[in-house]
Parts: sequence; C-alpha cells; structure tokens
Amino acid sequence: MVGWVMKLRVKLLGIRAGGKQIIVVDDEYASRLGIHSSDRVEITYKQQNVIAIANVATDFPKKTLGIYEEVQHKLKAQEGEMVQVRPAERPESLGYIRDKLSGRRLRAPEIKMIIMDVVERHLSDIELASFVTSLYIHGTSMDEAEALIKAMVETGRTIDFGKSPILDKHSIGGVPGDKTTLLVVPIVSAAGFTIPKTSSRAITSPAGTADRVEVLCPVDLTCEEMSSVVEKTNACLTWGGALDLAPADDLFIQVEYPLSIDPLLLPSIMSKKKAIGADYVVVDIPAGRGAKIKTIGEAHALAQEFIELGKRLDMHIQCAVTFGEQPIGYAIGPALEAKEALLALMGEGPIDLVNKAVSLAGLLFEMMGVNDGTQKAKDILKSGEAEKKLREIIAAQGGDPDVQPEDIDVGNETVEIRSEEKGRVQWINNRAMAQIAREAGAPKNRGAGVLLSKKLGDKVTKGDILYKIFSRSAQKLESSVLLAENLNPIGITGKFGEKMLIDRIPTKKISHEKPFILER
Amino acid sequence: MVGWVMKLRVKLLGIRAGGKQIIVVDDEYASRLGIHSSDRVEITYKQQNVIAIANVATDFPKKTLGIYEEVQHKLKAQEGEMVQVRPAERPESLGYIRDKLSGRRLRAPEIKMIIMDVVERHLSDIELASFVTSLYIHGTSMDEAEALIKAMVETGRTIDFGKSPILDKHSIGGVPGDKTTLLVVPIVSAAGFTIPKTSSRAITSPAGTADRVEVLCPVDLTCEEMSSVVEKTNACLTWGGALDLAPADDLFIQVEYPLSIDPLLLPSIMSKKKAIGADYVVVDIPAGRGAKIKTIGEAHALAQEFIELGKRLDMHIQCAVTFGEQPIGYAIGPALEAKEALLALMGEGPIDLVNKAVSLAGLLFEMMGVNDGTQKAKDILKSGEAEKKLREIIAAQGGDPDVQPEDIDVGNETVEIRSEEKGRVQWINNRAMAQIAREAGAPKNRGAGVLLSKKLGDKVTKGDILYKIFSRSAQKLESSVLLAENLNPIGITGKFGEKMLIDRIPTKKISHEKPFILER
Repeated sequence: MVGWVMKLRVKLLGIRAGGKQIIVVDDEYASRLGIHSSDRVEITYKQQNVIAIANVATDFPKKTLGIYEEVQHKLKAQEGEMVQVRPAERPESLGYIRDKLSGRRLRAPEIKMIIMDVVERHLSDIELASFVTSLYIHGTSMDEAEALIKAMVETGRTIDFGKSPILDKHSIGGVPGDKTTLLVVPIVSAAGFTIPKTSSRAITSPAGTADRVEVLCPVDLTCEEMSSVVEKTNACLTWGGALDLAPADDLFIQVEYPLSIDPLLLPSIMSKKKAIGADYVVVDIPAGRGAKIKTIGEAHALAQEFIELGKRLDMHIQCAVTFGEQPIGYAIGPALEAKEALLALMGEGPIDLVNKAVSLAGLLFEMMGVNDGTQKAKDILKSGEAEKKLREIIAAQGGDPDVQPEDIDVGNETVEIRSEEKGRVQWINNRAMAQIAREAGAPKNRGAGVLLSKKLGDKVTKGDILYKIFSRSAQKLESSVLLAENLNPIGITGKFGEKMLIDRIPTKKISHEKPFILER
Repeated sequence: MVGWVMKLRVKLLGIRAGGKQIIVVDDEYASRLGIHSSDRVEITYKQQNVIAIANVATDFPKKTLGIYEEVQHKLKAQEGEMVQVRPAERPESLGYIRDKLSGRRLRAPEIKMIIMDVVERHLSDIELASFVTSLYIHGTSMDEAEALIKAMVETGRTIDFGKSPILDKHSIGGVPGDKTTLLVVPIVSAAGFTIPKTSSRAITSPAGTADRVEVLCPVDLTCEEMSSVVEKTNACLTWGGALDLAPADDLFIQVEYPLSIDPLLLPSIMSKKKAIGADYVVVDIPAGRGAKIKTIGEAHALAQEFIELGKRLDMHIQCAVTFGEQPIGYAIGPALEAKEALLALMGEGPIDLVNKAVSLAGLLFEMMGVNDGTQKAKDILKSGEAEKKLREIIAAQGGDPDVQPEDIDVGNETVEIRSEEKGRVQWINNRAMAQIAREAGAPKNRGAGVLLSKKLGDKVTKGDILYKIFSRSAQKLESSVLLAENLNPIGITGKFGEKMLIDRIPTKKISHEKPFILER
C-alpha cells in the first residue's frame, strides 16, 4: 500500500530502548499517518531505510519523530533534520506467528523468516511474547526445532577454531553448586582434545559457570581472544553472552525471562553448540525433585530429543542423567564454588563432584574411542595435569595462574546454621538452598553463598553445623538467615520414614521465587 | 526479600511511555540492584510509592533513574532529586497468568487480582501478551468470562443515568457499511425508551460508528456531557473510548491489536454494557464468509454465550444473527455512510439497511412487551419521528440539527469501477471492499470510501458502474484503484454455477491485511 508519507522533524531522545527499534510520534500525527501504537513505520533519510515500531504518545511535540539511539544509530539523522516516515507493511513472519498461535506446525522457510525478523528487530516484545507463549503451549516438533536451530545459527556469528574434532559439554542446569564444568574442561583438554566451552551467567540461580570462572580470570572475551586461548590451550572457559552466537536466542530469552518459561530449551542449547562447530557433545541432565527435570522418565524423553536433533545437525550427542537430588559438592555461590573446584583439581574434591566430573569427561573420552573413559579421566585428574591445564587456561584468559584456594576471598559476614535434632540428612531442598544463597547476595556478590557441612545420608547430632551462610552485607546476611529459618532446606530424621511430612500446602512463601530456567 | 535498596538521582525523560509505568536504569546499577530488564522496582520518594517496570539500558548515566512521565506524574519527584529504589516482589497475579499459560482454569479472586494489576499498570506488555495469548489458545470458561467482566467493571467507572430500564444495542461487527446503529438508536429513543449508546472508532475497518456519527456532531463527550444528552433526549451516540468504562479492556486491546486476536470479545463487550447499566441488550451477530462469524452454527454458539453471560449479569440479552455476506446498504466510509443513514431516516434508505434497523429495533421493542416490534419500528421510521430524534441528539451533542444529506461533503477525487462482463452479482468480498475503502483514505479521511452501485443478485451489463471510489488524495485514489483491480471484490456471472472459481491459492496478496477485530 502507498500509505501516508510524511516529513517529520527528528528529536533525538538520547536513550536506548534495550536494543529495540522504537520511535515515538504524537497521537495526532500518528492518526494522520494512519498508524496505531505497535504498528511499524518505515523511516527514510538519505540512503538509510529503517523499520521501527511506533510508540504513540500524547503531549509529544507535533510533526516530530522521537528516535531512540538504536534507530539513530542506523538512520544517522541529526536533531532537527527532516526524515520521511510512512506506515510499513506488517512483516510476513507475523502471519506465521499467528499460525503457530492457532496450533499449526511451521515449515522451515516460515521459521527462518520469523528468526530473521527477530534478529532484524522487526518484531515487538508483544509479538515475541505471543510466539514464545504459543511454542510453550503447543510445543515444538522435531522439524520445527531443527529449523529453529539452523535459522538461529545462520542469523548469527559462527566460530571455526581450525581444529577437529570439537568437543563440548553442557548441563541443562537446575542443581545448585554444579561447578562440574570447571573440572571437565581441563580434564578433557589435558588429554589433548579441543573443548572451547562457552557458558552463561546466572539469571535466576546463585551462580552460572561464567560467574564461577570469573572469580579466577576474565570471561568476557571476544571471538578473536577466545580463538587464541583455544589455539594455545585447546580449551577456554568464557562467557557466551557477548559473542553474538545465535543472537535470536538471546532475544527470545529477554521475553522468556519475565514469563519464566523456557520453550526453546533445546534449540537454544543446540544452536550455541552448532555455532562453535561442536562435533561431540555430552549433555548433563540432572534429575531430581528439586532439579529442572523431576523424574528419570522425563530425563530419558529429553535425552531422546537431544540425540535426535544431534543426528539432524551432524552432532554426536551423549546424554548423562545425573543425580540431582542435592547440591553438587558443598559450595554454593561463585567464589565458594571456584575455590571448591580448584581444590578438587588439586586432589581435595568432594566425592560427588569428582565422580560427576570424571564420569562426564569419561563419556566424552569414550565417544572418542577410549575404552575406560572414566579411568582415563581419573588418572588425568590424579596426575595433576587437569590442574595444570586449568592454570594454563586462567593465564591465557588473563588471570593469575598461580592463584591458590586461600587467595579466593569469600564473604566475611557469616552465620552457621546448626541442627536442632539428631539423625541423618533425609533431604536437601535445592531451590530453597539456591534462594538462601541468592538472598545472601549471590551471584552479584561473588563471595556470597552457602557452604554445606552435611549432605544426604550424613549423620547429624543436635548442634552440628548443617551449613554456613556467607555474605558481604550484614543486612543481606540477616534476611538470608530469616529465609533459611523459614524454608528449613535440610530434612533430618532418625530413621527414614520417621518423618514423612515434607511440605505443607499452602506452602511457606518463597519470596521473589522464579523457577531456574534460562541458565545455559 | 530485603533487596538492594539504593538512592538514585532522578532524570526526567520528558516523554510518555504510552501509559506504561517504566523506568530506565543503567546496566551496572541494574546489576547492583540485582534486577534485569522487565523486573519491577519499587520507587519511594517522600510519601509516594510507585511500582515500575525496569528497562535496563547501556550508556545510560550511572546512579541515575530515568523516569517517563507516567511515573513522574505519580512520584512527583523533580529532575536531580534523589529517590529510593529497590527490587519489588513479582506481583501475585503473575503466578495466575502462568497457571493460565499451563491451561488451568482461573478462579474469580485470581482473575480479579490480574485485572487489578492490569489497571494498576503492574504488568508488562510481555506479560499481558502472554496472558492474552493463553486465553486465545486455552479459551475462557463461562465462570472465567463472568469473573473477567465483573472485575473489569469494578476496576473502572460506571454511569447511572437515573433512568430505567436502560436499553442498548451492539454489533460484533465485521461487515463494512454497517451504519445500522445510526437508525436503531433514534427509532428506539423516539419510542420513549432510554438507549445511551457508546461506540468505538475504527481500528482495522473503514469506519466505526463513532467515526460515522462524528461527521454529524462531536462524539468525544465526557460522562457528564453524555448524561445530560441522555437526560434531554433519552439517547446519545458517543465515543466510548475516553470514558474509562472497563479500562482493563482498553489495555488488553492495546496488546490484542498487534496480535490480531480477540480472545476477550465477550468480556469486552459485556463489561462496557454493564458499566452503563444496560438492562436489555440486542446483540447483532452478522454471519457470512466475509464477516467475523462465518457460519450460522458459529453464530448460534456465540449467541448462547452472550445469553448465558447476560443471565449471570442480570442483563436480558437477545441475539440477532444477520445476513453478513455483503456490505450493509451501498455506502462504505464515514461521510458516505452518515449521508446514507441520514437519507434512510428521511425515508430514502436502501432496503437491507432499513430492514436490518427495524428488525433490531423491533427486537428491543418486543423485549419491552410490544407485540409486533418490527411494525412499530417501521411506523416510527415512516412518521419521521426517528429523523427528528436523531436531529435532537445531534443538537444535544453540539452538531447542526438542520444538516442535510447534500451538506455532507465526500471525497472530490473519484473513480468509477465498471463491469467487464454481463450477468448478476454472485458475491461481494467484504474484506476486499473494506480494504479498498481504507486504501482510499477511510476512516482517517472522513470523505473517503466506496459507494456501491450493485449488490448481490443485481443485474449487470458490460460497462455498468459496479462501485465508485471516493478520496481526497489523487495518490491514495490511485493506489486504491490498483488494489481494487488486484482484489476484484465483486463476482459477476451469467448463471449461478457458471463461475465456480472464487479464489486461488496462493491467493492474491492483500497488503497490510489485518482481520477485522477489536471493533466494538
């Protein structure tokens, strides 16, 4: 359609719109243009052409186009200059989003169109939220997931490390204190394999792998820096967030986060792996009441999907269903976990952490043809080569290779939580533990968190320390302790079955609760 | 949770955020506060406490809180002043929105909580879009619809006209040229009944009732002005948009519009009726291929829901399924339609328009105990009392009561579309006609639109005028004619059955297409 072309005067708003391409126009001129809020306009200035989403405002100067910095950046028009504005056609992808809304399976080219418009910022938050909600409710077929992954990779940056094969490891997360990656990557690379690991920061958990590693060295590397680290060490432990790998995924996460839903779990993970050219991937699926996946059955179903998608993408995938009923190791919170991981590489690790690490590394080794992978992993850990390798990586990423566990400082405000009864630890509530650590300040305060003294099955006598809370703020510590008393995250009993009441409904309120999702 | 309380310096952004309560904070301080984009913050300044949604921006001044005018309006803080900011708890209603997402039926108090948070602006567009999408996919039960309506009414303004009973009329719309309300309201009020009619402006159609009436008199009345018009004339024909009746509905429409979905159709209509205290309502459900409701079956199902909801709300509802296969009358576009309606009240109306008007008015009369309502309506129309009444209403609303049809000016740029074949009109494509009228400039240009010369079943010889397009812009006229040639909205055939191909797939592209929804 021709639309109502109009010349409007540019007003620079001087702020960003969170990456969105938004313009502001007064309601009278909006109606003259024939547009409503959320409609798209095409702005033309010299050679530049920008599609932006209109925000119709009252009391905004007439005959004026307010532009946020994202639009200004592309348009290059200055304050007061005249630009041409017209209603833009609705993107074709919107029709496919409506189809998905109605439950129709989308075809690959349709999905490609949606993902391209997502990356081009042609879709509003409202439209993205509706699409993500539809995917959550109607589900995603294998064909759709494959198309989503390919489109996400094609619309983003990819890295070729010039080495082959590329190994990788991923956990779908949900278990606090899971610093396994800090052991697996050095073990695998110490064996001469290439494993360029990118990780996320915590969004809703007390610590993401990137937060843990950042205690030891910078993680915010560019693709070039990352490549040279991998060149030197066969490995890296970096933050994936700024690498522009599968940028569509990062944009989806922005709308998934407030909704606390994660319908794109598989495409999100697989697209990041594909973008760095992974050939062999071990996917850790922790299963347990307090984990993301509750039952072994669910875990198997998810594993089948990972494997099937891997086949479609020429990736060899091995899934590991791991015990997720309690935190891994004793430490929860970036600094506490980095310290525990370093100790583990130095030979003093908790049995579950070490066992999980050598098992996952072992699976990768066996995928590469090693007979007893776990044994090989144990040997490498024992020999100290893994520790040496981690220190190489720390150095290559710009950290202090000689860092010692005692150098890592943790919160100086502490409280010990003691047992009021005797018996054995019957359960540990993962989510409650995570929230206590977050309340203490993790992940923002690197030194904040929880250090367990007892784990499942451990003997406890009255007055024993169950766990210790670390913080840097007396106020945060106090509120964390209050939360701990309220949540009572550790269940102790004399004989199993002696204490059958696990929870009550209405349950005690967990303030500010958010499911652990979106942690990659 | 305690959260990270922080003092930040106010920066007035000086623009509105479309009614939303949004603040902007730099990413470093966001992370210090422990919040991400879309999280809520609680801002405290003197006695004021405001919950706003955070927009995390890069390159934003540090230690600064950017506030849009909506927040400024409530907070009353000035540029440079320090305010206290802390993360706010997620609203409880968000949990219920997630429940709906998962397909659970919501209970009345839960729905009330959601609607209150919608009106309080505690929910983001992302959350609203997800809720609306969930309602669209999972559907709404009668109990939910009832709760939605009651909550929408309770959270908005209501009007008591001090008269009883209150009659009302509503069309779910979807048929172009439907100016029936301009006849029904005068006919009913001429009979001494009270019918305070509020209508909407066109969003996606060529004309809404408010647009048509505005050609004759102002429609943008306050509640007080509206009451005094009703006091004087027993009726009114006003725009409902600014009356703050069921404001939650207006907010839902803002997210439904870009998605082109309308899951709240019934609650939306019923809440507006309830807010003005309607006791007897006739609901017009046009059925036809090009209408919102395609089949008689659908129409009956919808009618049952209206009637059931009416019972729950002490409203007597009568539904009329009307013929929606072609435009009503010959005129499409605000001025052309106002002219046709005025002519009809003066005794020169097209048969279908007159028949529809007297039928609907007749149904209302019969609900009030009249024996042959349609006959009574015809008599009133014939007697000229209805015309007299419309002129009273026009005068009371501030228009010229002596306006004559020829005074109403229509677009001076015109083109006649002629038939290339002989036969009879077999079909008229409603949506195509509406788009041709919109392309010509309707509803924005009051005088733009389409005037049909032929309707279903009419004899046509080669070269006959099928319809005439009116515009005020040669450019718009031209693009409208191009669209008309492309869409070919009128099907002509010698014998029925002689021309069976109605459409082809892939169909011809209808640019900028949007389903007709959200027209109230």
